[in-house]
Amino acid sequence: MERLSESVSALVSSYEDFGLINHCNGPNLPSRESIEDILADLDAIIFPGFRESELPDQESLQLTTAERVFRTARKLSNEIEKSLSFSCRTNHFSCEGIGCRTMAEMIVEDFFTQLPEIRRVLSLDVAAAYRGDPAAKSIEEVIVAYPGLQAIAVHRLAHYFWVREVPLIPRMMSEIIHGRTGIDIHPGATIGESFFIDHGTGVVIGETTVIGKNVKIYQGVTLGALSVKKDEADTKRHPTIEDDVTIYSGATILGGKTVIGRGSVIGGNVWVTESVPPDTLVYVKTGEHILRPKQ
Amino acid sequence: MERLSESVSALVSSYEDFGLINHCNGPNLPSRESIEDILADLDAIIFPGFRESELPDQESLQLTTAERVFRTARKLSNEIEKSLSFSCRTNHFSCEGIGCRTMAEMIVEDFFTQLPEIRRVLSLDVAAAYRGDPAAKSIEEVIVAYPGLQAIAVHRLAHYFWVREVPLIPRMMSEIIHGRTGIDIHPGATIGESFFIDHGTGVVIGETTVIGKNVKIYQGVTLGALSVKKDEADTKRHPTIEDDVTIYSGATILGGKTVIGRGSVIGGNVWVTESVPPDTLVYVKTGEHILRPKQ
Amino acid sequence: MERLSESVSALVSSYEDFGLINHCNGPNLPSRESIEDILADLDAIIFPGFRESELPDQESLQLTTAERVFRTARKLSNEIEKSLSFSCRTNHFSCEGIGCRTMAEMIVEDFFTQLPEIRRVLSLDVAAAYRGDPAAKSIEEVIVAYPGLQAIAVHRLAHYFWVREVPLIPRMMSEIIHGRTGIDIHPGATIGESFFIDHGTGVVIGETTVIGKNVKIYQGVTLGALSVKKDEADTKRHPTIEDDVTIYSGATILGGKTVIGRGSVIGGNVWVTESVPPDTLVYVKTGEHILRPKQ
Amino acid sequence: MERLSESVSALVSSYEDFGLINHCNGPNLPSRESIEDILADLDAIIFPGFRESELPDQESLQLTTAERVFRTARKLSNEIEKSLSFSCRTNHFSCEGIGCRTMAEMIVEDFFTQLPEIRRVLSLDVAAAYRGDPAAKSIEEVIVAYPGLQAIAVHRLAHYFWVREVPLIPRMMSEIIHGRTGIDIHPGATIGESFFIDHGTGVVIGETTVIGKNVKIYQGVTLGALSVKKDEADTKRHPTIEDDVTIYSGATILGGKTVIGRGSVIGGNVWVTESVPPDTLVYVKTGEHILRPKQ
Amino acid sequence: MERLSESVSALVSSYEDFGLINHCNGPNLPSRESIEDILADLDAIIFPGFRESELPDQESLQLTTAERVFRTARKLSNEIEKSLSFSCRTNHFSCEGIGCRTMAEMIVEDFFTQLPEIRRVLSLDVAAAYRGDPAAKSIEEVIVAYPGLQAIAVHRLAHYFWVREVPLIPRMMSEIIHGRTGIDIHPGATIGESFFIDHGTGVVIGETTVIGKNVKIYQGVTLGALSVKKDEADTKRHPTIEDDVTIYSGATILGGKTVIGRGSVIGGNVWVTESVPPDTLVYVKTGEHILRPKQ
Amino acid sequence: MERLSESVSALVSSYEDFGLINHCNGPNLPSRESIEDILADLDAIIFPGFRESELPDQESLQLTTAERVFRTARKLSNEIEKSLSFSCRTNHFSCEGIGCRTMAEMIVEDFFTQLPEIRRVLSLDVAAAYRGDPAAKSIEEVIVAYPGLQAIAVHRLAHYFWVREVPLIPRMMSEIIHGRTGIDIHPGATIGESFFIDHGTGVVIGETTVIGKNVKIYQGVTLGALSVKKDEADTKRHPTIEDDVTIYSGATILGGKTVIGRGSVIGGNVWVTESVPPDTLVYVKTGEHILRPKQ
Repeated sequence: MERLSESVSALVSSYEDFGLINHCNGPNLPSRESIEDILADLDAIIFPGFRESELPDQESLQLTTAERVFRTARKLSNEIEKSLSFSCRTNHFSCEGIGCRTMAEMIVEDFFTQLPEIRRVLSLDVAAAYRGDPAAKSIEEVIVAYPGLQAIAVHRLAHYFWVREVPLIPRMMSEIIHGRTGIDIHPGATIGESFFIDHGTGVVIGETTVIGKNVKIYQGVTLGALSVKKDEADTKRHPTIEDDVTIYSGATILGGKTVIGRGSVIGGNVWVTESVPPDTLVYVKTGEHILRPKQ
Repeated sequence: MERLSESVSALVSSYEDFGLINHCNGPNLPSRESIEDILADLDAIIFPGFRESELPDQESLQLTTAERVFRTARKLSNEIEKSLSFSCRTNHFSCEGIGCRTMAEMIVEDFFTQLPEIRRVLSLDVAAAYRGDPAAKSIEEVIVAYPGLQAIAVHRLAHYFWVREVPLIPRMMSEIIHGRTGIDIHPGATIGESFFIDHGTGVVIGETTVIGKNVKIYQGVTLGALSVKKDEADTKRHPTIEDDVTIYSGATILGGKTVIGRGSVIGGNVWVTESVPPDTLVYVKTGEHILRPKQ
Repeated sequence: MERLSESVSALVSSYEDFGLINHCNGPNLPSRESIEDILADLDAIIFPGFRESELPDQESLQLTTAERVFRTARKLSNEIEKSLSFSCRTNHFSCEGIGCRTMAEMIVEDFFTQLPEIRRVLSLDVAAAYRGDPAAKSIEEVIVAYPGLQAIAVHRLAHYFWVREVPLIPRMMSEIIHGRTGIDIHPGATIGESFFIDHGTGVVIGETTVIGKNVKIYQGVTLGALSVKKDEADTKRHPTIEDDVTIYSGATILGGKTVIGRGSVIGGNVWVTESVPPDTLVYVKTGEHILRPKQ
Repeated sequence: MERLSESVSALVSSYEDFGLINHCNGPNLPSRESIEDILADLDAIIFPGFRESELPDQESLQLTTAERVFRTARKLSNEIEKSLSFSCRTNHFSCEGIGCRTMAEMIVEDFFTQLPEIRRVLSLDVAAAYRGDPAAKSIEEVIVAYPGLQAIAVHRLAHYFWVREVPLIPRMMSEIIHGRTGIDIHPGATIGESFFIDHGTGVVIGETTVIGKNVKIYQGVTLGALSVKKDEADTKRHPTIEDDVTIYSGATILGGKTVIGRGSVIGGNVWVTESVPPDTLVYVKTGEHILRPKQ
Repeated sequence: MERLSESVSALVSSYEDFGLINHCNGPNLPSRESIEDILADLDAIIFPGFRESELPDQESLQLTTAERVFRTARKLSNEIEKSLSFSCRTNHFSCEGIGCRTMAEMIVEDFFTQLPEIRRVLSLDVAAAYRGDPAAKSIEEVIVAYPGLQAIAVHRLAHYFWVREVPLIPRMMSEIIHGRTGIDIHPGATIGESFFIDHGTGVVIGETTVIGKNVKIYQGVTLGALSVKKDEADTKRHPTIEDDVTIYSGATILGGKTVIGRGSVIGGNVWVTESVPPDTLVYVKTGEHILRPKQ
Repeated sequence: MERLSESVSALVSSYEDFGLINHCNGPNLPSRESIEDILADLDAIIFPGFRESELPDQESLQLTTAERVFRTARKLSNEIEKSLSFSCRTNHFSCEGIGCRTMAEMIVEDFFTQLPEIRRVLSLDVAAAYRGDPAAKSIEEVIVAYPGLQAIAVHRLAHYFWVREVPLIPRMMSEIIHGRTGIDIHPGATIGESFFIDHGTGVVIGETTVIGKNVKIYQGVTLGALSVKKDEADTKRHPTIEDDVTIYSGATILGGKTVIGRGSVIGGNVWVTESVPPDTLVYVKTGEHILRPKQ
């Protein structure tokens, strides 16, 4: 027990030596646990009756929704207040004039007024997934079982807060759903209506990507940057995908000036670093591998 | 608070405008939470003593198993009844004559009679993983730590219900384990004995894939469709992999008529859209990349 | 009910026929649930205040740390004792002389003395991630939201126990974080300071890989083996990556004798099975795909 | 296992033979678990910040209160609907015309409008307890630690629903707090302002008891009925206690016509079955026991 | 922290000095937590649908009951095995010949065959409560809200195990329900059909009490012993109450030879140490207290 | 929903009008929930292995105890700090000079040094209960099933903090165990070694009571005050019970100057307001009730 007691002291010293600690005396950060809770609550507000075991009946839908909205508003206000305070103290942001708490509550109130619009957009994403996957048997199946839809739903929420310059939280939201689906969409990415990701594992969509309407992408697609220099953080580093584009599995499209023109199709495993005109098919040259009998 | 109250009303209206809601007045769906519970229970029935902290001793194994079987049977009957009712009301399926509840209970009873056979097949998968991975130190390590094995175990359960045309649930099972392992096997795929997936992240195996015995595949392998038109949903769109085939990481094999012949080896990153004869090695042509000194 | 009762009997028989069971009469294995608990506790000891909702203030930091260390020490001792006993009984390992419990406690005590050093190394990994990703806005963001950092943190813990030849547990740790991040690092891999994995889904790093300092890798990179014969399990089968190397997404580097020389850059999707000299750029030949207008 | 299987069948038969079962095909009852939840929620609404660990700050008090009110309103509506439906089907009550659900929601909405008044009355009870007990050090101590106050608080809630003729629920509330405090107040009892019960274990206050203002009673006091004939259930069977009366421990006062006049004091262990005039002291005659040296 | 570390050592020493410790090296006792679980399970088996929120429907009643019976059988077998082993090692009891585990399982199997009969007797207790309390509005109210019924139900279970000489567990059951209701019935007491306790707080019924049919008792009644000498532990020390007796609140009846004859009524607060003939009223003499105006 | 929204506003206003609210802007109180947690932890430290389901083995007893002590120390420090701050701000107490946090930690550290002594005293209470109750079959039965022992154990802890003038917490501890056992011992009471309470429901022991060694009391006993005037709060208002006294059920002993002399026995239901000499028997006069045949 003595050695363990010494390790405790050594650890407490190490907290001063190597940072990596976040306590009340320093700026107070939003917790991952709370953000997960909030996402679960928002999921239930957006898709009522789909994922919980207790089903809302018509009669109690008003009360249930009111309860959920106020609970989520309280939790969101707390976490956003923390993240704004963090930025205010570390100088990236300023709530001066009105204070972090009031700013947090204003953002939250505004967010809830936008939620019906977010639901409208998501209903288009659901329809796109149903149309886009021959294996999909019903709209309900898309809602209960498609990871791509979950990733897009969280992205549309995270993106809202990203645009309002809420620190940390949008990124935490993205990483939570990345962990669950293997789909990594940076909250900064701008994504149009009727977006569909199939299978999805390994998809990466960078911060300054712009995606149009009716775009469909498959597992393992990267929409990335050519350069990763820290001082280019504020420039557009990721590609633009215009309306009605399809990108098959494993394709990689890089660069802030790269534009995939409207209606084009990018084949599987293709590597693109320059723009592609509209209505173009891009595919890997055949005959690139060798067949040989096992001896 | 006033703005939030207005948002509540706007959300309730939006529930009528944009659907995406599932309440008691509509058809009642199986919940993801319940399916996760059921999978955990089945896991404990299949691998008793491996994942829970409370170990079954010899004496209480009978009581423990009986409790688990009856609990899981009750939960499964409820969820299957919901999914059958959903289909009956939306016209894809009919339990007429005997009713959804009775049909659900018959499926569940039959399922449990098949479970010992599923355990037999899984014991072959465990053995294949142990043989196939030099890093595996023991059979027990495979059971407690191999995501490939988890994915196959859930697939063999989900496939049982897929064959019986239970709606939604097989797909929900697949997506739950896809979320945990990054391995996306459609419950419709037919997979033979002694199947081994190593590492597994990014693997996609489509609905009409047929896989023989002793097949081994690595991370990032896609067994997919060439066409994704909705009206071809009922044809065989995914490849056939015969016995004793190995497919290395990142390979993509597409098309319902593509057959990889018995004993062949598909190399890493290979892209195949046509059949490969038995006992053939397929690999990427060398010299495809360029080396240049950094200036 | 009768059919279910028969299924219970059939299952109990099947436990004797097809193994896949772990009960008290056989060797007692560490449970996945306990290892997950232990990782959560260690995470809180390493990054205090970052992931839990209850924040440690300066005053209670000592008490909180002591409590966490003793709790984790107790749980770890129990699980390590189980895993050592398993090996002793199945002949891969011997605690003779001092017994499994004492050996377990010695390993645990030693582990905690090393934890401040592990924190020091992780603080370098955090800094590397912040420097390496233009999208990273703060050190705190890296800690709360980067899956690559989580994977490295768990690897550094798992590797400690791997080196001490603790069976099963290091591998279970790796698979838990693999499941959450899609990053699969074998606990045997040797990894230098200031390591950064971006996005990370699909990364595979094999058992005998050796990685230097300041190495940066992206999603979908495989550091793997050329041969997977069981009898070569004890040889170096995976590559060596020297200091200051960057490996872009989807690259595959195979073979125990393959060395990527100091300062080299491996481009996206490159397939390497032989050594690359220091300060070399390796990239995929251009013009490998075809553009064609959609008719 | 066979004998247990037979017992299961015997139990299921016994459910038909001896009733004592409540299932969905019969009337659906409010559950004790839900009523306990509701009482905890109402406690938090009435005494915010006193019993939970998460403290409401000024800023979030509105959001927290809204969330609690809507959650409790939803739960209460559900449970009251069940209890009204139970009565409608078993003929003691009728919601005809508007239906049980609407009736339930009307009662709940009205209840919440009365809650501020209930808080006002409870604040007088708190003050009475503080004045009445020399051992009370602060108002806060009364709120956090006096079982008498808890019992009165629950009574004032239960009585509200009793007056509106909600079946079962008021009685369930009373029994929940009876179980926790040993104080058994029938929800039908009418109790004036500034009521104080000290210690309280064993107190029984019957259905038709009427208690004035500023009454104080001690542990073991019974305010009961002389007759317990079922056909007198609708008459006043329990006593009337006028303003400013004190009743010491163990006293028993019985009978619907018994009136304890304003300002009187009933001594410990006194047995009263007839009225007592105002401003009277009643006490046990001295000299009723015998002292004898132990031999 | 140093002083706390010293206290830890002092406590560990104190465990050897002052006992009061129960660890694996000593005999393993049943845990209160497990017995509480078991009682909740048995409550659900006896009164299905009354106390849980998830209601059993007709269809799933068989599965639900089977699950509950097997779960409770497993838990009960474990706890009874512990308590038998405890007695075997400390010499009060002997399972020799068949062993504690087998003995435990035999007791449990037999218990479940008796459960339908226990339900039959409890249905008479419920009816007696409904008849006996003018305030009772329905049979359902008695089941959901009468602490007297809960206490009798637990007693009838505990008594079963007492008669089979299971150590510790019957007494733990009694104390659990004593804590919740204030009704203290020793598991050894023999109690006839149609027993009713109203209010109940403070009731004490001793180990060797014998109670007939149709007996009714009120709060604060003691059926106790005159002598409490340890060496008289095996004699009948508590009274006999014959059929159809009513005992009002606060009455005390003491002594193993005291018999309250059939049909008698014992008034409130009466103190009885000798037998009372059948059909007798016993009540406190009037005029025992003094009325005096407050000056 | 509108009416509920109005009720929310009315409630928030009522929080300002009628107090009964405790929020962060006001003094922060210890929570009942935390005190319950702390009592459960202390129970496990005092009686290791008796009430939890996870048994400490010899090997892990040190680690387990260390973890428990540090966890409880942290929680206790937090709650005591809150209660000291409450008093400091409301002027009953002053931590000036060292501050509430440091004072709290000093009290906690000292408390743990006294815990072995508290265990020694409790081992005598356990022995007294075993000797005093003929129905007790073993020492273990007393520990797992005697509410009197639980009440005394909590009292000895609460009294420690009462003596150190910690506000609120001692009283909260007493009320928690009062709620569970029906035994109401004020934390200020001074109680000697080898104290035994049998059955216990309804026992009340006042703040300034002094009890010697080897005292035994039964259910329903009150040791109370004659006067309850607020301005006499600081005088001795409750009786003194000397060594070796026994007090039977329902007896009431009142007054700060009342002394029950060493070795005396107070009979059931006796009412005492004056001192009783040593070695005296006090009992109720016989012949106080009337027997009469029913009609």
